[in-house]
Amino acid sequence: MDRMKYTVIGGDLRNVKLAEAIVSDGNQVNLFGFEKAGFETTLDEIEDLDAAIDDSQIVIGPLPCTNDNEVLNTPFHKNKIYINEVFRKMKKNQLFIAGRISDRITQMAKAYNVYTIDLLEREEMAVLNCIPTAEGAIQIAMEELPVTLNGSKILILGYGRLGKVLTRMLSGIGAEVWAEARKFSDLAWMKANGINAVHINDLDDYLGRMDVIYNTIPSRILNSDRLEKLGRECLVIDLASKPGGVDFDRAKLLGIKVIWALSLPGKVAPVTAANYMKQTIYNIIEELGV
Amino acid sequence: MDRMKYTVIGGDLRNVKLAEAIVSDGNQVNLFGFEKAGFETTLDEIEDLDAAIDDSQIVIGPLPCTNDNEVLNTPFHKNKIYINEVFRKMKKNQLFIAGRISDRITQMAKAYNVYTIDLLEREEMAVLNCIPTAEGAIQIAMEELPVTLNGSKILILGYGRLGKVLTRMLSGIGAEVWAEARKFSDLAWMKANGINAVHINDLDDYLGRMDVIYNTIPSRILNSDRLEKLGRECLVIDLASKPGGVDFDRAKLLGIKVIWALSLPGKVAPVTAANYMKQTIYNIIEELGV
Amino acid sequence: MDRMKYTVIGGDLRNVKLAEAIVSDGNQVNLFGFEKAGFETTLDEIEDLDAAIDDSQIVIGPLPCTNDNEVLNTPFHKNKIYINEVFRKMKKNQLFIAGRISDRITQMAKAYNVYTIDLLEREEMAVLNCIPTAEGAIQIAMEELPVTLNGSKILILGYGRLGKVLTRMLSGIGAEVWAEARKFSDLAWMKANGINAVHINDLDDYLGRMDVIYNTIPSRILNSDRLEKLGRECLVIDLASKPGGVDFDRAKLLGIKVIWALSLPGKVAPVTAANYMKQTIYNIIEELGV
Amino acid sequence: MDRMKYTVIGGDLRNVKLAEAIVSDGNQVNLFGFEKAGFETTLDEIEDLDAAIDDSQIVIGPLPCTNDNEVLNTPFHKNKIYINEVFRKMKKNQLFIAGRISDRITQMAKAYNVYTIDLLEREEMAVLNCIPTAEGAIQIAMEELPVTLNGSKILILGYGRLGKVLTRMLSGIGAEVWAEARKFSDLAWMKANGINAVHINDLDDYLGRMDVIYNTIPSRILNSDRLEKLGRECLVIDLASKPGGVDFDRAKLLGIKVIWALSLPGKVAPVTAANYMKQTIYNIIEELGV
Repeated sequence: MDRMKYTVIGGDLRNVKLAEAIVSDGNQVNLFGFEKAGFETTLDEIEDLDAAIDDSQIVIGPLPCTNDNEVLNTPFHKNKIYINEVFRKMKKNQLFIAGRISDRITQMAKAYNVYTIDLLEREEMAVLNCIPTAEGAIQIAMEELPVTLNGSKILILGYGRLGKVLTRMLSGIGAEVWAEARKFSDLAWMKANGINAVHINDLDDYLGRMDVIYNTIPSRILNSDRLEKLGRECLVIDLASKPGGVDFDRAKLLGIKVIWALSLPGKVAPVTAANYMKQTIYNIIEELGV
Repeated sequence: MDRMKYTVIGGDLRNVKLAEAIVSDGNQVNLFGFEKAGFETTLDEIEDLDAAIDDSQIVIGPLPCTNDNEVLNTPFHKNKIYINEVFRKMKKNQLFIAGRISDRITQMAKAYNVYTIDLLEREEMAVLNCIPTAEGAIQIAMEELPVTLNGSKILILGYGRLGKVLTRMLSGIGAEVWAEARKFSDLAWMKANGINAVHINDLDDYLGRMDVIYNTIPSRILNSDRLEKLGRECLVIDLASKPGGVDFDRAKLLGIKVIWALSLPGKVAPVTAANYMKQTIYNIIEELGV
Repeated sequence: MDRMKYTVIGGDLRNVKLAEAIVSDGNQVNLFGFEKAGFETTLDEIEDLDAAIDDSQIVIGPLPCTNDNEVLNTPFHKNKIYINEVFRKMKKNQLFIAGRISDRITQMAKAYNVYTIDLLEREEMAVLNCIPTAEGAIQIAMEELPVTLNGSKILILGYGRLGKVLTRMLSGIGAEVWAEARKFSDLAWMKANGINAVHINDLDDYLGRMDVIYNTIPSRILNSDRLEKLGRECLVIDLASKPGGVDFDRAKLLGIKVIWALSLPGKVAPVTAANYMKQTIYNIIEELGV
Repeated sequence: MDRMKYTVIGGDLRNVKLAEAIVSDGNQVNLFGFEKAGFETTLDEIEDLDAAIDDSQIVIGPLPCTNDNEVLNTPFHKNKIYINEVFRKMKKNQLFIAGRISDRITQMAKAYNVYTIDLLEREEMAVLNCIPTAEGAIQIAMEELPVTLNGSKILILGYGRLGKVLTRMLSGIGAEVWAEARKFSDLAWMKANGINAVHINDLDDYLGRMDVIYNTIPSRILNSDRLEKLGRECLVIDLASKPGGVDFDRAKLLGIKVIWALSLPGKVAPVTAANYMKQTIYNIIEELGV
């Protein structure tokens, strides 16, 4: 792939690590929006955003892109950066890549003739992000439990991407792993992958014997009735985005420990997360033939 | 699940094993169309097809259902059984299950008000069938090679269902496994599953160092140019359905051994194949609430 | 196995968990020496040591048994318990089990006609203890690194019991794992177990490319010369008992982070460690036909 | 390692493959004793044994070395080669390597001042040979069974070298694997390796539910009483050297299929077996500093 010029604007530590990783491949990166961060980085920050954008082929924004559909998510920048300002500065042949680009932002981009790509909509990014998520989820259980995961009985609710990656790692360290799903084809995959399969209709029979339950399903699967079936020592780790899959109040009443662990990749392995972002950006460039 | 009454008509050894497995779960099965088979079976065959159908809730046909869209595929029956005759005898609340039910047969069924389900269109069946296919594919390589698979360099072309199951088993016996795909998300899955990833654009660089290449892609990926890159000792096993993925003539000229291995489940593990059919039929019944 | 009567005297949290586990199998346990502990336990402590010993078939002491060859290692007891006092109280058909029973204590036991067994000399205990040690070692690396272990290059120095268990788990979560050994038969085992093998003569060539190095060898293998070959980001985790395998001063000068992690089972998984002790005690009883 | 001169005398196909492999590393090899073999080989055979030996540093004999303690085991040579003749021709600084060198041959070598090494006594050779043995054992089961090994219940009797390698591979293709042993430390290793453990005292409870039983123990463990507990469909594969571990007559009476599979490495993977021999010879040379 040819060397290219990038501008990275705002975001968190991952975006700094992303910039460093892109530079280490021989590309040029203008870094903007981290004056207040206090991260150690080998990169110089650029002070003139207009010049930075003007000088680059790819503009990389934050993940998530924005919290209010108006300003970029730049927690370490002293001023606000309005998204429409960025779009106004961009030329037609430049590319804007960021995370969770809302419909409203997409509309805005169209108005300015800016081509945008949502990193978090890329299937390979979604798959790769499951790796640090799974490792983080395992680390939490190791820290919380007075027993080893090896030999523990662990149930994963849901057998999508994260369920598959997590069950594989847990088996690899010697846990007894079950996974739950509704679709028979998911159960077939469990069988093919050597994971004990539980159909949702039979779920209630298994809850009582688990040492750890991970939830990956973003709907209230661990409701009040099901929580009552858990042993009091069972640790619940909810990996599902809002609203989560656990009746947290009920769990508290029952004395069941629940940890709701979100956004693990950036927390437990920012460098790895940044590398996956980099790889996905390179894939995008290769597909587009930029 | 309640006990039910089945009629199994024709097909190969798998259908006999299927009938036995259904009976062993406490159901009743009328077996028809195996007079000439010479299989050992503990089941009695029924002689009156009309009575058999009349007495059952589920009618199971062959896999594949038919070769000519007219008569059932009953290689071990002395006479022809016309599909429209079977449909005519069936009542509205009965279910016809078979493999590869063509559009033409589906039309015919509609005309007779018969509800049909194609077993081979079921996703869980497709996944499960990869297990005996992969084992059969491994057995072939073990029989052919003067080296162990453990430590051999093996490339799988394609990372769909079969590619996933096969790479997992090959890694499990200690082979060095690569997989090839075009989609970046497939490469992400290889990474997540611990398989060395090869993008199709880089495929040619890897062909020369492999001891075994398995193809799972039903298009001519191993064309003349690529075959020339293979070592002369490399064994090629093509698991793709017609037209296969190898330029067989060119391979022959080059002295490269190619084995085109089709329909492995029925050949290497008919009892397992029958059990997967049974499980899928039970899933269908549960979904339909028959 | 018949139900039996035990007395557990002193030690740390593991001995309390051990007592609880033995009770949960239906045995009777007199617990002594934890007044100051503040652990939550469901067991009552007995106040009269003489009666406790008199009433039991098996006396279980601390791990390690003693620090001075005179008094039992009872950090949570208000007074000193002299070992010869315990031995004096014991009858000939009673059994004394503890950890790291020195030659001096063994002599003392003989003088009192007491039969002793060192739990830490049992091969199955040594193997089982590697499981929580390995998990603890993995947890530390997860906590320290800004990358995932999945995909990291990890070298384990030594391929004894712990090396085998640790490499297996690390492979299971998707790390790229190398192990180092001097004996060719150890290298053969690495090959059989799917681990990249490094002979000690070639070790220096591999040090520079590792993200993590675990040492399991209780001699100074990571000396000054070898430490200089490490990347500055490489994390070193030393699992070897004193004197450890790393030139700690030199590592500090070079800015290489070294964590010397000892006694992990009791720290990271006391309940699991206690269960392994229980299982080993049952094995001893079965072998002796007590 | 410096290039060296070898003479390979007699033996089976493995010794020809061994010679080819040694040559492909840049060494010189005199091949002798295969006139009648009809193997395809790229090597020229030498016709003058005296000159061959005189010209080499290492003399490699057959595996096993001899059947009668007098002549070398050279099935493809037209004449007899007396071992004492070979030893007489050898000089003091030459090395004689072969398999299963009896005490009598060792004595003879001493009389001639010849230094001998038994390849089959090398621990790394014993470990490595388990790899092709295990693969061959798996191939046999695949060929014999109408079910997949994936999902089958398989018991391995004995958890020594072969038991460890075989259970690992079988788990890797998705079988449900149990192993049996007498020593508690072996059971601890099963736990650490994720294999279901059966103590020999409990063996009889497990025999009836297995689809395949592999024996690796060279003593009659599957005696008449135990065989009666097996299901009639259970396949028994005995991998133990004479006298084997099965009461073959009793099994026949009971209608249980037993396959006694010996010397698998040379049969199923001669090239791999030869490579392991080569590696071990190189190790010997490195250790001796020849």
